Amino acid sequence: MFNAFIEPKKLKRGPQVITLKDAAVISAFTGLQSGDSVVDAGAGSGWLAVYLGSIVAPSGKVVSYENREEFASLAEKNVVRVGLDKVVEIKRADVFQGIGETEVDLVTLDLADSEKALASAFQALKPGGHCVGYLPCFEQVKKFVLESKNFGFEHVRSIEVGVREILVRDYGCRPATKGLTHTAFLSFLRKPRMP
Amino acid sequence: MFNAFIEPKKLKRGPQVITLKDAAVISAFTGLQSGDSVVDAGAGSGWLAVYLGSIVAPSGKVVSYENREEFASLAEKNVVRVGLDKVVEIKRADVFQGIGETEVDLVTLDLADSEKALASAFQALKPGGHCVGYLPCFEQVKKFVLESKNFGFEHVRSIEVGVREILVRDYGCRPATKGLTHTAFLSFLRKPRMP
Amino acid sequence: MFNAFIEPKKLKRGPQVITLKDAAVISAFTGLQSGDSVVDAGAGSGWLAVYLGSIVAPSGKVVSYENREEFASLAEKNVVRVGLDKVVEIKRADVFQGIGETEVDLVTLDLADSEKALASAFQALKPGGHCVGYLPCFEQVKKFVLESKNFGFEHVRSIEVGVREILVRDYGCRPATKGLTHTAFLSFLRKPRMP
Amino acid sequence: MFNAFIEPKKLKRGPQVITLKDAAVISAFTGLQSGDSVVDAGAGSGWLAVYLGSIVAPSGKVVSYENREEFASLAEKNVVRVGLDKVVEIKRADVFQGIGETEVDLVTLDLADSEKALASAFQALKPGGHCVGYLPCFEQVKKFVLESKNFGFEHVRSIEVGVREILVRDYGCRPATKGLTHTAFLSFLRKPRMP
Repeated sequence: MFNAFIEPKKLKRGPQVITLKDAAVISAFTGLQSGDSVVDAGAGSGWLAVYLGSIVAPSGKVVSYENREEFASLAEKNVVRVGLDKVVEIKRADVFQGIGETEVDLVTLDLADSEKALASAFQALKPGGHCVGYLPCFEQVKKFVLESKNFGFEHVRSIEVGVREILVRDYGCRPATKGLTHTAFLSFLRKPRMP
Repeated sequence: MFNAFIEPKKLKRGPQVITLKDAAVISAFTGLQSGDSVVDAGAGSGWLAVYLGSIVAPSGKVVSYENREEFASLAEKNVVRVGLDKVVEIKRADVFQGIGETEVDLVTLDLADSEKALASAFQALKPGGHCVGYLPCFEQVKKFVLESKNFGFEHVRSIEVGVREILVRDYGCRPATKGLTHTAFLSFLRKPRMP
Repeated sequence: MFNAFIEPKKLKRGPQVITLKDAAVISAFTGLQSGDSVVDAGAGSGWLAVYLGSIVAPSGKVVSYENREEFASLAEKNVVRVGLDKVVEIKRADVFQGIGETEVDLVTLDLADSEKALASAFQALKPGGHCVGYLPCFEQVKKFVLESKNFGFEHVRSIEVGVREILVRDYGCRPATKGLTHTAFLSFLRKPRMP
Repeated sequence: MFNAFIEPKKLKRGPQVITLKDAAVISAFTGLQSGDSVVDAGAGSGWLAVYLGSIVAPSGKVVSYENREEFASLAEKNVVRVGLDKVVEIKRADVFQGIGETEVDLVTLDLADSEKALASAFQALKPGGHCVGYLPCFEQVKKFVLESKNFGFEHVRSIEVGVREILVRDYGCRPATKGLTHTAFLSFLRKPRMP
């Protein structure tokens, strides 16, 4: 069903691979699993929402906020294309105006000003739930983490994930000469179990 | 249920974190999902089997081979401890003697001589299924990938995954000074859909 | 004479190695050579001053500013110990109060507020000369580079340099498991040849 | 004189930058300085010979072996172009047939089979002198280091050096998205002071 993630040809496209390594770590480091409930913003092409949907399926749910109509429409098509329309919902709304969902296991934020959605994220999460920022620049990491403490979040860790390709040949093995050297930092926050 | 993977304290233990990043990428790059069938060898402490079990649960299955009694026993305890005993089976058998399972989605090999299990892995996999080697040394990567072609595998890619911690403080942000710099290379093979 | 830099035992001490890789790149990326004139601040233990002295010797000059007496005294001892007292001078003065030297080829700044020495550095440098900041935190990089433009500097590049140890053994080769993952960012500025 | 190494435009050309970081570390980790004596093979375009010449100038010497006439001729032109013809000599000879120089401080080897020049390198070096292999593939590192012991060398360390560019902008700082991820491993050997 989710061959979109595993076809070698697709893996070779830079940004896609990058997103895949980061999506992998977001999912693993928050312990995401089948049946979980996720809020994602913004949807963009819907790629992360679809990836997370593939983990929480079949009984879980991903609601992905997107208030730019062209992206919402594209994301919806991608969701249908991979057969996840019962798991992933693209919601035409501004996440900065609030999150309607509650008792959520994971909120993922990939916005220019992700820190502005932290108050809403905190309310939406269940105790022990995670909020992850996908943050290309250092300044975003700093704002996201420092402001999160005002809302009651614990900062679990901030990291960057690198994947380097190894060329394996009969005549000699070595890391690839060129490659992706940065996508984004990932900041992991957690709503305390006991507030 | 799988809080073992997400507790900050546990994440801080070096090898565990490492395993988590690699497990994350093994799962994501092979498109593993709820309902899938996995064979793993050797079980060791059962950590990877448990992680993969958390992804394929509730309807999927992980069979993890381990022929050293003390490890099999430890792995079984860990499986029970996290409540995955209906998903993960520790099998007291030598994977080099053959794999009984068939139509498997993923075979993961973390052995000193993982290449010796490639013939069995190929037979166990369904067309399009993945075999991933967790290989600390480059000689292992070379043997694993080059020998895999003799059995009909396609080499999708070999990579190494790095995670670097970023310190986020009011008075200054920077990457951590020391950290893990290598765990293992990951080699992804695939059984062709049409042989 | 400069065996301090090359003794294997010394190379094994973390921070020393780190400094060596960064010193190597500072020197190489600015084209430093025998006969050149350098200003360094602050001296600290005198390590970087001694390293740069070993490159500009025998006819060049390094003046290293240090206004904390205990460090100035330590740095002087180190300079004498390696026999560079005719090349490296430890100057007991506050670099923020101005730099007396002129027509300098290279200014290296390793201070908590290195950007505050940029005006003085610009004046001290000859046209085409380089100023390099050794900056542990990203906020320092940003201030250093953005403020440098106010004084007329060109930003050549900012980088981070990593060195990873490879274990070479008959029974298997691989990168070391743990190691240094960050020392500082290096920002390279240049005083334009034609203002 | 050596502006070739420091012009920003030249630094931006991938392989050149790469060579610069590695040349920087070769020079620094072996303590190379003005007055030293170096043997280099093969010359190729003469780039490394010229770089090392810029460090050992004015009184030192670099002899660079090259038995392919077209490269020897190119390397000679580059040496003259940067004004180092009194320091760097391009020698039309096969380094595998032996090295005529003696009491050398440093031998650098960048050949497909660098390990075949180890016996000659050992003879040419003075006690305490260094031999550095520039080795793109893992297999070369292994052969180079393991065979070096047969000739009496100590293995000081094998490393890889990475440089990552940091983008510094008013609106956000972050590492560059793409870049060089590998050039070669560097293996540092040393002829013991007391055999």
